[in-house]
Amino acid sequence: MRLADLSEHSGVSLATIKYYLREGLLPPGRRINATQAEYDESHLRRLRLVRAMIQVGRIPVATVREVLAHVDDDSLGLTFRLGAALWALPHPTEPSADPEDDPSTTAAHTLVADLLARLGWRTTCEVGDLNPAHRALVAALATLDRLGYPLDTDDLLPYARTMEQAAAYDLDRMEVLPTPREQAEYAVAGAVLFEPVLLNLRRLAQAEESGRRYGL
Amino acid sequence: MRLADLSEHSGVSLATIKYYLREGLLPPGRRINATQAEYDESHLRRLRLVRAMIQVGRIPVATVREVLAHVDDDSLGLTFRLGAALWALPHPTEPSADPEDDPSTTAAHTLVADLLARLGWRTTCEVGDLNPAHRALVAALATLDRLGYPLDTDDLLPYARTMEQAAAYDLDRMEVLPTPREQAEYAVAGAVLFEPVLLNLRRLAQAEESGRRYGL
Repeated sequence: MRLADLSEHSGVSLATIKYYLREGLLPPGRRINATQAEYDESHLRRLRLVRAMIQVGRIPVATVREVLAHVDDDSLGLTFRLGAALWALPHPTEPSADPEDDPSTTAAHTLVADLLARLGWRTTCEVGDLNPAHRALVAALATLDRLGYPLDTDDLLPYARTMEQAAAYDLDRMEVLPTPREQAEYAVAGAVLFEPVLLNLRRLAQAEESGRRYGL
Repeated sequence: MRLADLSEHSGVSLATIKYYLREGLLPPGRRINATQAEYDESHLRRLRLVRAMIQVGRIPVATVREVLAHVDDDSLGLTFRLGAALWALPHPTEPSADPEDDPSTTAAHTLVADLLARLGWRTTCEVGDLNPAHRALVAALATLDRLGYPLDTDDLLPYARTMEQAAAYDLDRMEVLPTPREQAEYAVAGAVLFEPVLLNLRRLAQAEESGRRYGL
């Protein structure tokens, strides 16, 4: 399809598509003559993802470029390809930059190490705090501790098991896609777009459970 | 304890405590003479919660005041007391204000209604979109659809079941507390502080599951 068709099919304006092309967020089309290029399904898919990251995730252009570089890196095994793409995304954690060596942070490090051991999450133990989600989890637990809401391993275990189940569903759904690139794109879209769905499902589930236990 | 002790025990500065008192976020202490008042454990607990909402949740003072009014409302049954307090909090959803009647929003309404029926969540069906989490879920699903990532009921069911389990853990932990007021405070703290923990656990669980399936 031509640029105008790409715009029409995606609902993204010509000006925005040209901006994405210029910024390297969308790969160039296949040149068919001096002034025109041909675009295909992969461009449409990529355009969807870029729009999701920028418009919904409010992710800066430089970060989007970095995420996509990992998504497109055919030299990586799938775990590292998914990992690198997701690690480049912003992580949900508290805004403050807290000291690395206060007692709450030390306690949170111990807590996460203990939790991972109890869970038997061997890859996660091995990768350690190279994974920004690991660091963000430590920071979030340190904040809870610092504010007077300390948690222990038994508090966290059932939630971690719950998320283990959700992760298995995530990958089941991802594996339906035919190529590692599409799978990595899907994982990124899921991280950006699915978190609000999950959090709102949790709040609805809390209201439901409350109605069951305590009546309306 | 005196104001100075409250500051020391909580780690919150005197100036901040006085500001919270002035704004009505912290109830006044029991007057013991013309210049001094006595504070107790309930002040310490409330101070923790206010700080969590303002510093971590970045929730505006007027909203904090509204949330606390519901937390303190002894006239409400527990489901509505928890509900009202949580409903007053900001909800995780996409920033844009989308049209109410576009095809994606209509489809999302149908999807959520179908999901709730399949789940048998009767309270949630009854309360409907009075619950802002219901509206936020519809908006998040409409965005997914609009961006070219439509979901159906079978996609969502396993995640909703997972969140149902997590909600049961939430309430089990809350019920350990002795009074409805403390339970409502706990629910608010959980909504503000525990979401980053849950989302980061999810990302770690995805990495773990990926390592298991595809190797490192």
